[in-house]
Amino acid sequence: MTVKLTIDCMGGDHGPSVTVPAAVHFVRAHPDAHLMLVGVETAIRAQLKKLKALDDPALSVVAATEVVAMDDPVEVALRKKKDSSMRVALNRVKDGEAQACISAGNTGALMAVSRYVLKTLPGIERPAIAFAMPNPHGYTTMLDLGANVDCGPQHLLQFAEMGHALVSALEGKERPSIALLNIGEEVIKGNETIKRAGELLRASTLNFRGNVEGNDIYKGTVDVIVCDGFVGNVALKTSEGLAQILADIIKEEFGRSWLTKLMALAALPVLSRFKKRVDYRQYNGAALLGLRSLVIKSHGSADAYAFEWAIKRGYDAVKNGVVERLARAMEENAAPLEQAAREAGGAGFASPAAGQPAEPYAALSPKA
Amino acid sequence: MTVKLTIDCMGGDHGPSVTVPAAVHFVRAHPDAHLMLVGVETAIRAQLKKLKALDDPALSVVAATEVVAMDDPVEVALRKKKDSSMRVALNRVKDGEAQACISAGNTGALMAVSRYVLKTLPGIERPAIAFAMPNPHGYTTMLDLGANVDCGPQHLLQFAEMGHALVSALEGKERPSIALLNIGEEVIKGNETIKRAGELLRASTLNFRGNVEGNDIYKGTVDVIVCDGFVGNVALKTSEGLAQILADIIKEEFGRSWLTKLMALAALPVLSRFKKRVDYRQYNGAALLGLRSLVIKSHGSADAYAFEWAIKRGYDAVKNGVVERLARAMEENAAPLEQAAREAGGAGFASPAAGQPAEPYAALSPKA
Repeated sequence: MTVKLTIDCMGGDHGPSVTVPAAVHFVRAHPDAHLMLVGVETAIRAQLKKLKALDDPALSVVAATEVVAMDDPVEVALRKKKDSSMRVALNRVKDGEAQACISAGNTGALMAVSRYVLKTLPGIERPAIAFAMPNPHGYTTMLDLGANVDCGPQHLLQFAEMGHALVSALEGKERPSIALLNIGEEVIKGNETIKRAGELLRASTLNFRGNVEGNDIYKGTVDVIVCDGFVGNVALKTSEGLAQILADIIKEEFGRSWLTKLMALAALPVLSRFKKRVDYRQYNGAALLGLRSLVIKSHGSADAYAFEWAIKRGYDAVKNGVVERLARAMEENAAPLEQAAREAGGAGFASPAAGQPAEPYAALSPKA
Repeated sequence: MTVKLTIDCMGGDHGPSVTVPAAVHFVRAHPDAHLMLVGVETAIRAQLKKLKALDDPALSVVAATEVVAMDDPVEVALRKKKDSSMRVALNRVKDGEAQACISAGNTGALMAVSRYVLKTLPGIERPAIAFAMPNPHGYTTMLDLGANVDCGPQHLLQFAEMGHALVSALEGKERPSIALLNIGEEVIKGNETIKRAGELLRASTLNFRGNVEGNDIYKGTVDVIVCDGFVGNVALKTSEGLAQILADIIKEEFGRSWLTKLMALAALPVLSRFKKRVDYRQYNGAALLGLRSLVIKSHGSADAYAFEWAIKRGYDAVKNGVVERLARAMEENAAPLEQAAREAGGAGFASPAAGQPAEPYAALSPKA
């Protein structure tokens, strides 16, 4: 089976100069992949020409005349730019011509346009952003990382269901372990939302392990950590900041004098391995979960190497049937999810009115 | 002037075997300090004897028969153990015999007992935990780190006032810059609480710089970052977890073979400097702010070196008149703070009923 993906070539800080080389490199390494490069034709073709890939049959160019800028408000992306590379790339997925879309475009716009074009799965009120954080045994999947602020208990339950489906599909785990991010392990800890979400999770069929704390993300205590998008986003950005300052300090210490530079040279093989292991670029690519098809969001500042990792995430997810499994899992759990939403006095599972992005999107960073 | 501090010798995972050596070492390096060692007399004297410090005039022993365990519920610490080392240490501060108390005891109990014994400053509804996070230029002071979950906008404003007073006192900055922790820089980002807190801060006399994101903590974008205790606690613990895994990876890579061990040896001076700079133990000691006297909370797992840093934080704060400045700043800002609380429909500034710890304490981790 050919894995067909659409690439929003105009998204991100660098546009086609990053997205096209990543796509070209990817198809050369993955013979069963076909990528549709969506965006301003001349810009894409210029890049393809440079890379001698104009005639590559694994690549096709799909024209789109508009570009969603990194600082465009959600409303502009959704209502004014109907021929944007982002929108066209998502439309192709909706029409069944491709199985997933990869974009480095602004998060708020991507989430809103994805939701409008693709719609949410039954049982899901709000899509979430899931990210694989490294731990000593592999990955801890964490969600939500910024799509939703002010989540209710039923949303956290839905995130848990989605995380369960994602990890069981991608990592082949029958019953991935799931926990709530909290400020203490005890049941009585946290705010009211967390406590109520804990009750819902304990009553569910999921492999719920209770509460974990921030340090458990990197310990790998559980497979899936569920949290409100505000909290998740702060945890992710804080990690980015800390990793950066530690890297800077290492560089500074080894660059202090000719002697320390010599020491760096002596330790180069180890330092290189370390650098490679902690290179955040290989963790690029967050999944927008809860939609009827898969969307992978790359960091806006990704370079070609990092963007290729995001393509790889989409490719792996399609190969493993993540969306189908997610849909199936949601169907199986429709009853308890609906009951939780009803109890929470939520709007139920009706999709929001067309063209009306739900409130939380207003909170999303266009730059993230 | 002699700086007089009380040490809750029984607190923390290790009790007197850590707290007493730290105290002995501290007074030997600080001739103007006097430390009152509070706790089970025999245990403290046994440690003092071992260190040949039984007759040190800079140390005195204050007997307390009970110990607040690391997993004692707040209610037990508050109502049953009235002769605990924690309570007696705080009583001495209340009675004016010492100017600050240092404890590695369980956070929830320490916060509740401190609040009950010392009372809050006028204008402060909820005390907060403030911590100095390292950045390339020095420190970013962050609060709250876990004393309060579900903060209202007026609480965030109060935290900002306290952060302002702490940093201007400790670092001699006239108008420290202050920001709200958010998931994007734009004014429209975040939840309703953050947006309203932003309005209150913009209307205040503080040097408010708007919103920052998680990565700004370690960049040092501003002097003070204000956040809800839930979010702050997750950011802090996530940082601890990430730092730990990175240290483990470095160790693992250098320990891989005799060749890499040789490389580590060659680079030892640099690695040692790096290790020293990032040693979290020197950042130990969070301030419980908003009380009528100062309390410093040490990490429960602190060793003697780390605990000595917590003592040092209390000593520095007393020398710099932090509590007096905080009280003065609160008085000056009483009017706007009261108005904010009234608008928020809050309970105003009345202290909670004696012996009745406010709701948020239930959320505190006894282990933190």
